[in-house]
Amino acid sequence: MSTPETVHGLFAPVLTPINADLSPDAARFVSHAKQILADGCHGLCPFGTTSEASSFSNEERMDLLDQLVDSGISPSVMMPGTGCSAIPDTVQLTKHAVELGCAGVLVLPPYYYKGVLEEGIFRSFAEVIERVGDERLRIYLYHIPPVAQVGFSIKLIERLRNAYPKTVVGIKDSSGDWSNLSAILKEFPGFGTFTGSEKFLLETLRHGGAGSINAVANVIAKPLRALVDGYQNEDAEPLQSRVNLITQTRGGYAPVPLLKQIVAYQRNDPVWTTVRPPLVEMADELAKELIGQIEAAGLPLHS
Amino acid sequence: MSTPETVHGLFAPVLTPINADLSPDAARFVSHAKQILADGCHGLCPFGTTSEASSFSNEERMDLLDQLVDSGISPSVMMPGTGCSAIPDTVQLTKHAVELGCAGVLVLPPYYYKGVLEEGIFRSFAEVIERVGDERLRIYLYHIPPVAQVGFSIKLIERLRNAYPKTVVGIKDSSGDWSNLSAILKEFPGFGTFTGSEKFLLETLRHGGAGSINAVANVIAKPLRALVDGYQNEDAEPLQSRVNLITQTRGGYAPVPLLKQIVAYQRNDPVWTTVRPPLVEMADELAKELIGQIEAAGLPLHS
Repeated sequence: MSTPETVHGLFAPVLTPINADLSPDAARFVSHAKQILADGCHGLCPFGTTSEASSFSNEERMDLLDQLVDSGISPSVMMPGTGCSAIPDTVQLTKHAVELGCAGVLVLPPYYYKGVLEEGIFRSFAEVIERVGDERLRIYLYHIPPVAQVGFSIKLIERLRNAYPKTVVGIKDSSGDWSNLSAILKEFPGFGTFTGSEKFLLETLRHGGAGSINAVANVIAKPLRALVDGYQNEDAEPLQSRVNLITQTRGGYAPVPLLKQIVAYQRNDPVWTTVRPPLVEMADELAKELIGQIEAAGLPLHS
Repeated sequence: MSTPETVHGLFAPVLTPINADLSPDAARFVSHAKQILADGCHGLCPFGTTSEASSFSNEERMDLLDQLVDSGISPSVMMPGTGCSAIPDTVQLTKHAVELGCAGVLVLPPYYYKGVLEEGIFRSFAEVIERVGDERLRIYLYHIPPVAQVGFSIKLIERLRNAYPKTVVGIKDSSGDWSNLSAILKEFPGFGTFTGSEKFLLETLRHGGAGSINAVANVIAKPLRALVDGYQNEDAEPLQSRVNLITQTRGGYAPVPLLKQIVAYQRNDPVWTTVRPPLVEMADELAKELIGQIEAAGLPLHS
């Protein structure tokens, strides 16, 4: 199957800074986005799971995306998350992103009902695609069963690609399961397959994947980019081992509060530690301890 | 603890009829709501799980609720579902319901992130209550872990009640687990505890519960009401056994498509069979077979 051109490389699900009153902090958001692009990200996925996307209203999400574009960052490097439980909400966010000129959108399946039929997920995507009705639309399926609980089987991916070959152009696999990711890479050569787990970055690129969309790209874009650029080099394995250190070290702690603590540490800016409920910020002392462990293991976090 | 007056009796999570183009059908919605009230429901919970609430935008939900009130049904018998993943969305729906004069609201916890800390769920509710900022607000916690995956422990219920005794006044327990429901009934006498499973209706009332919020109240309000009115009578057990027949008979089939098929059968109106993706309608032949089995077992569905 011939596939339209897809984006490639290192993308960050951009963390969303918020103020003490829980409102989004657009200035810090734009500044952070520019910094991680400067540090080596090829592109941005605002409103992924790491961005606390589901904790913001559609209005807040569209406003933040507008501000990114207004700041001068090209929408051609953006793939915002737009998948909601309700079709009209997904359509609204997706239309907005397409009209801004975004390279693509990262779309969760409807995630409230569990155990739904694949036919129902297929119809949800078909309905969104028809309602958006724009040839520029490029959808990347967002497969994150540990959180959404609803995902995309190989059969469903195939059905969506066959029905909408110019629109359904890729996937982010955040299953954390190499056997699933490698099956996608094998079944769908030319599909824009991104790993959501940085530990599979090297193997994903070696197997023809499009790249990586990783939470840790918010804080270690440079070493991740070195791995993306150098994956065919002899020193690729040690580069991979180095970027694994954050996730290996954080143990059972939730990723978003720790990543926000690391940004606060990097920018010397405690505003960054705040999260929106239902997430809870990480205590400063625990963050300090974990950051110390990550750096001691060989991954400096100050650039 | 003294608790403010709460609602009691039989409530229906109102099915949401939709047209072939997937838009909500407000006329059928209002007509159905009036019919089930006439059949014996004490009140209505529009926008529960059975209502496909998560598949509709906030605008669609507010418009449908407005139309119910405009049709002359008193908001004093309404307890709409208003819980979303994002605090601003929950606040918008909750404010709207309170300003309409609804008796209460049924509030899901934020349900995208899994394994969140109870502190985070508590903060979500605190934030919603503060932002709504209305003394008339009465919250019923919506505990449905088989679907939302996020729920309310006894400890969290206690914390919410202690912090907001005039506001957090009840719970709908759709865990399907009698040991959980009976623990709530035992721990919190006077709390407005509703069973979400009709099979526990009799036991809930015998243990001082407030009543029942059941999907099947959309189609068998009369026998359910007979049980609510007669739970202290000698024939209560057979009444309970009779209302159990739908759920016992449907086997592994999803409840919403079957319930919509039963309404279509009762009203002789095939428009009712449509569901919004990600749900998928039930095939007519299968529905006919299941309806036949339910009636043959002793529960007539035509009133």
